[in-house]
Amino acid sequence: MKPLCFARNQIIPSSEATLHPMDIGLIRGYGIFDFFRTENFVPLFLTDYLDRFIGSAQKTYLPLDFNKETLRNIILELIEKNDLRQGGIRMLLSGGMSDNHFSPAKGDLFIFCEDLMFPGEQKYTNGVKLSSIEHVRALAEIKTTNYTFPVWLSSNWKKEGAEDVIYHHNGLISESSRSNIFVIKNGEIFTPDQNVLHGITRKRVLELSGSIKIQPIGFDETLAADEVFMTSTTKKILPVTRIDDRQIGNGKPGKITKELIQAFQEMEQKNSG
Amino acid sequence: MKPLCFARNQIIPSSEATLHPMDIGLIRGYGIFDFFRTENFVPLFLTDYLDRFIGSAQKTYLPLDFNKETLRNIILELIEKNDLRQGGIRMLLSGGMSDNHFSPAKGDLFIFCEDLMFPGEQKYTNGVKLSSIEHVRALAEIKTTNYTFPVWLSSNWKKEGAEDVIYHHNGLISESSRSNIFVIKNGEIFTPDQNVLHGITRKRVLELSGSIKIQPIGFDETLAADEVFMTSTTKKILPVTRIDDRQIGNGKPGKITKELIQAFQEMEQKNSG
Repeated sequence: MKPLCFARNQIIPSSEATLHPMDIGLIRGYGIFDFFRTENFVPLFLTDYLDRFIGSAQKTYLPLDFNKETLRNIILELIEKNDLRQGGIRMLLSGGMSDNHFSPAKGDLFIFCEDLMFPGEQKYTNGVKLSSIEHVRALAEIKTTNYTFPVWLSSNWKKEGAEDVIYHHNGLISESSRSNIFVIKNGEIFTPDQNVLHGITRKRVLELSGSIKIQPIGFDETLAADEVFMTSTTKKILPVTRIDDRQIGNGKPGKITKELIQAFQEMEQKNSG
Repeated sequence: MKPLCFARNQIIPSSEATLHPMDIGLIRGYGIFDFFRTENFVPLFLTDYLDRFIGSAQKTYLPLDFNKETLRNIILELIEKNDLRQGGIRMLLSGGMSDNHFSPAKGDLFIFCEDLMFPGEQKYTNGVKLSSIEHVRALAEIKTTNYTFPVWLSSNWKKEGAEDVIYHHNGLISESSRSNIFVIKNGEIFTPDQNVLHGITRKRVLELSGSIKIQPIGFDETLAADEVFMTSTTKKILPVTRIDDRQIGNGKPGKITKELIQAFQEMEQKNSG
């Protein structure tokens, strides 16, 4: 954590931020968040992230006292005061102190600045492994703080040498625990649309390649793909070369994935001016 | 909330309890809890609840610095200081401040005393309605704070005049959002065992009637049952007389349900001495 955060409607030392533990953000795991990066002090794709955060609050019935412009100004002030050339910014809205300890109430807004943890270069060179799990996330489309299951799973996937999981249900894949999935076969790129969070990096990839097919994708088709990659704010575009004990394609990051990694890097540089 | 709680390893005013919002209890919804009642200053079935709480910590890889005897003594002290003749006690263990903001860490323990909110007497006289939802809880067997989905659903089921939901998946029922389900047909009582929290009230009901069959139960069988009831710490045994638009049995609380309500009340009185 960087020294300063936004809490109690002001910029204060991060160590002094507090939440009452009876907030349903803790006792019911009910809250929303978003997370984005700065490059060269520029919060990348900020409008997209703010739109999604405001949308998550609306969809979870949580009132938010700040509009997009105010949020943007708080974030810019935090970046300046924390000297955040390259870092992560986490926005959080808790579910609030609920009369019946269950129904959505009026929560607290927090904005923290963090150091970034990117995957090592080797993961981009060799690709990573995912462990498959039969599961589908409830409310996947909303960026809630509901990660109980993957946090619990994580010690297991680490033991298996996996980077993360890939969820599948009724024969169809959806997403990884914090990333979207893309599948390439015979030169065509596919990504699922059901039961997934609409990631901002996913959105950028869809813009980079106008011909990506958004449709249901079988777990079997995924295993038989030529290339697979995952996208997220910190992973950017990360090649997946193994699912469980199955090699994907020739077991190395593929040509189309590498082209997209390059194109995304150029897009990012352009946006961080 | 009653004036005093346990936090920061001591008994302090409840209003002064704080959690750092970067705890994964908030940012990943990763934490455990338990909840029980006092009657006549006696914490009912305390050993069962403490065993479950300690078990939940172990199953979620969360270290707990207090053993059962210490927890019991803290709880008895809180009951005395809060003059908690009849009330609820909530134990919470957060996931902790995690280096990577994801993996289980070492969390904070909180114990709060609350006023109880029992269902009104009319609900026991007439029975309640449940709304069915196609869903199965991940990690249902562990008492985590993962209630994002039912909190989100709750405004909808209230609009439908329902008390809560009943989850079903692949044709089988599991549980309500915070209660176990029992189904009665031709004088035999059934309750599911898969994808359910093993409730303490459920355990008491299994003791009260030694012949209850623990087995998978179809959603269709549930709709066609003679009687259905739900159990939880605050609901005790609550008759279910409607699921969606379907009447259960003759639409009134049934004979076996009423006998169990009476038997449970006697068991509780015996235990609160």
